[in-house]
Amino acid sequence: MSSLINDSFIKTLQLKKTSYTPVWIMRQAGRYLPEYRKTRANAGSFMDLCRNTDFATEVTLQPLDRYPLLDSAILFSDILTIPDAMNLGLDFVQGEGPQFSNPIQNESDAKKLDIPSMEKLSYVFDAVRSIKEALKNRVPLIGFAGSPWTLATYMIEGRGGTDFLTIKKMAYSRDDLIHHILKINAESVTQYLAEQIKAGVNAVMIFDSWGGALSHHDYEKYSLNYMKVIVQNLNLMGYEDIPKIIFTKGGGQWLKQQVSANPNAIGLDWQTSLSEARKITNNKVALQGNMDPSILLGSEKNIEHAVKKILDDYGEGEGHIFNLGHGITQFTEPEKVEIMLQVVREYSQQFH
Amino acid sequence: MSSLINDSFIKTLQLKKTSYTPVWIMRQAGRYLPEYRKTRANAGSFMDLCRNTDFATEVTLQPLDRYPLLDSAILFSDILTIPDAMNLGLDFVQGEGPQFSNPIQNESDAKKLDIPSMEKLSYVFDAVRSIKEALKNRVPLIGFAGSPWTLATYMIEGRGGTDFLTIKKMAYSRDDLIHHILKINAESVTQYLAEQIKAGVNAVMIFDSWGGALSHHDYEKYSLNYMKVIVQNLNLMGYEDIPKIIFTKGGGQWLKQQVSANPNAIGLDWQTSLSEARKITNNKVALQGNMDPSILLGSEKNIEHAVKKILDDYGEGEGHIFNLGHGITQFTEPEKVEIMLQVVREYSQQFH
Repeated sequence: MSSLINDSFIKTLQLKKTSYTPVWIMRQAGRYLPEYRKTRANAGSFMDLCRNTDFATEVTLQPLDRYPLLDSAILFSDILTIPDAMNLGLDFVQGEGPQFSNPIQNESDAKKLDIPSMEKLSYVFDAVRSIKEALKNRVPLIGFAGSPWTLATYMIEGRGGTDFLTIKKMAYSRDDLIHHILKINAESVTQYLAEQIKAGVNAVMIFDSWGGALSHHDYEKYSLNYMKVIVQNLNLMGYEDIPKIIFTKGGGQWLKQQVSANPNAIGLDWQTSLSEARKITNNKVALQGNMDPSILLGSEKNIEHAVKKILDDYGEGEGHIFNLGHGITQFTEPEKVEIMLQVVREYSQQFH
Repeated sequence: MSSLINDSFIKTLQLKKTSYTPVWIMRQAGRYLPEYRKTRANAGSFMDLCRNTDFATEVTLQPLDRYPLLDSAILFSDILTIPDAMNLGLDFVQGEGPQFSNPIQNESDAKKLDIPSMEKLSYVFDAVRSIKEALKNRVPLIGFAGSPWTLATYMIEGRGGTDFLTIKKMAYSRDDLIHHILKINAESVTQYLAEQIKAGVNAVMIFDSWGGALSHHDYEKYSLNYMKVIVQNLNLMGYEDIPKIIFTKGGGQWLKQQVSANPNAIGLDWQTSLSEARKITNNKVALQGNMDPSILLGSEKNIEHAVKKILDDYGEGEGHIFNLGHGITQFTEPEKVEIMLQVVREYSQQFH
């Protein structure tokens, strides 16, 4: 770790002093970049891009080459690699997002589910090794996975962004089946992140994209507790030094509970005030976020204003990683990202 | 008001003592009821149902006839009646929800916008009068409208439930245009709710379905402040005695700000803890909610358990109106609703 040329992101995760607020962007390697669209056109499908070591390395590095002010790389991959390796029939349907042709529909489907062999996911670990080599320690590399609950929503609903009526109907009538699936997912994610760490990632992030759909009574039971198990087991496996970030989109009302999962950082969306989150989490964890990605569609003046407000909101001291509160939209002009990064770098120095 | 046979809902809105927790259900007149589906089949389109006084009256009364334990009726209508009256070309597309064929796309569209004549909405006020007559004061009748921000999302995006990139792009580059539209919407909603009150509704609710998509920095500016103006203006018009409910879906982190809008009650979704909300709002307002509608898709045992947990969460004392945290889903079995209503009535008495 000490060999990193820019370690501001890792230091912030450790709540150590840096000279400015580090920044990276969720989905920073993506469709808003013309160079990404070009590589994607050569690669074929989205999963073809993930599975090809050279292509995955190329697109991971693209935003870093364009924006020297980025403080971290993130593995180019998808949270659905695990359910894909479980043979649920993943397909990315044009304009409709990911879909599974064999979702879990009943007890028999649930009982057939098993932890996938990590062999099947070796393309991910190969990509990590290749990206690490290409990065030459310029910045750290983040590995990631979906949360057990979030993976389960895709595995049961067959797709994301629904009303979650199918998975909730199962949870509220066959609690045992949901926990059976979540347990398998938690063990799969643990093994998967451990392999990413062995391959060289410097930090890991668990994306709980749909935990925010749960009630305040059920969030811990169905989502947070399983993320907690992953954090604990990675620590027991000897990876205490690898910083862990959890991010429940829409989970800003449950920060106190999230601290109990013992992550190094908590991701926040734009509905949450950083200053209030800081009070609640009491400087025990770093906070990552939280600009609305749509700010980047607006005027330069408003981008500058919004970035400053977020940095002001966090205020003095260490522990803030600037990011968006969700993935960057494909409609963003790359020049707008440059403005955001410059304001973060310049304006944040007074706080450190 | 004193002539109501069952005034538990109104009393709770006034924070007065009742012998049990009153309950009604968002979208209680709807597709989950076979009698609704039958009337709807005779009426034609959804808007045909809203526009026909007899049909609107019939479906408003249906849940009350089936469930004697319901403590309020709500006008059968839609939040999009106002933009419809603004000639934006409302159409309910099968399976895709409401869409506008002439959304506001630029400055010229925005500048053409005007407060619609209330004459064009007379079918709504006729329905109120007809429903009031049919109710014979059994329970109160709630009137409603969409919030200015929520109406603007449909008027600019052309439909709901999107990523709101079009309206946000406008807000973050042409702030003046958004405020121009929101001001017209606020005045339109004020006139509209005033007419509903004149026609006989006993309480009004403002549905801010998409206010939760805003950032904590922007919620007050674009959504709450305009709801505040409506509440203030209705009070100035002499309707202080008509209780006012505001409900920002996904707005559970902004309750302190919501109290400042001076409503009688705040609606909550299931992500928010009633006990924490009660601490934050400090018994200054009633709280309405907040069961996840998908609970009604689960087992009877789990419904009973979930209802009791919500009533326990609010605890002793007045000021809680039981409801779902969002509209009831069309997949709900009507028998499950009966169970929920019975548990609310029986279990809540100990708290009063």
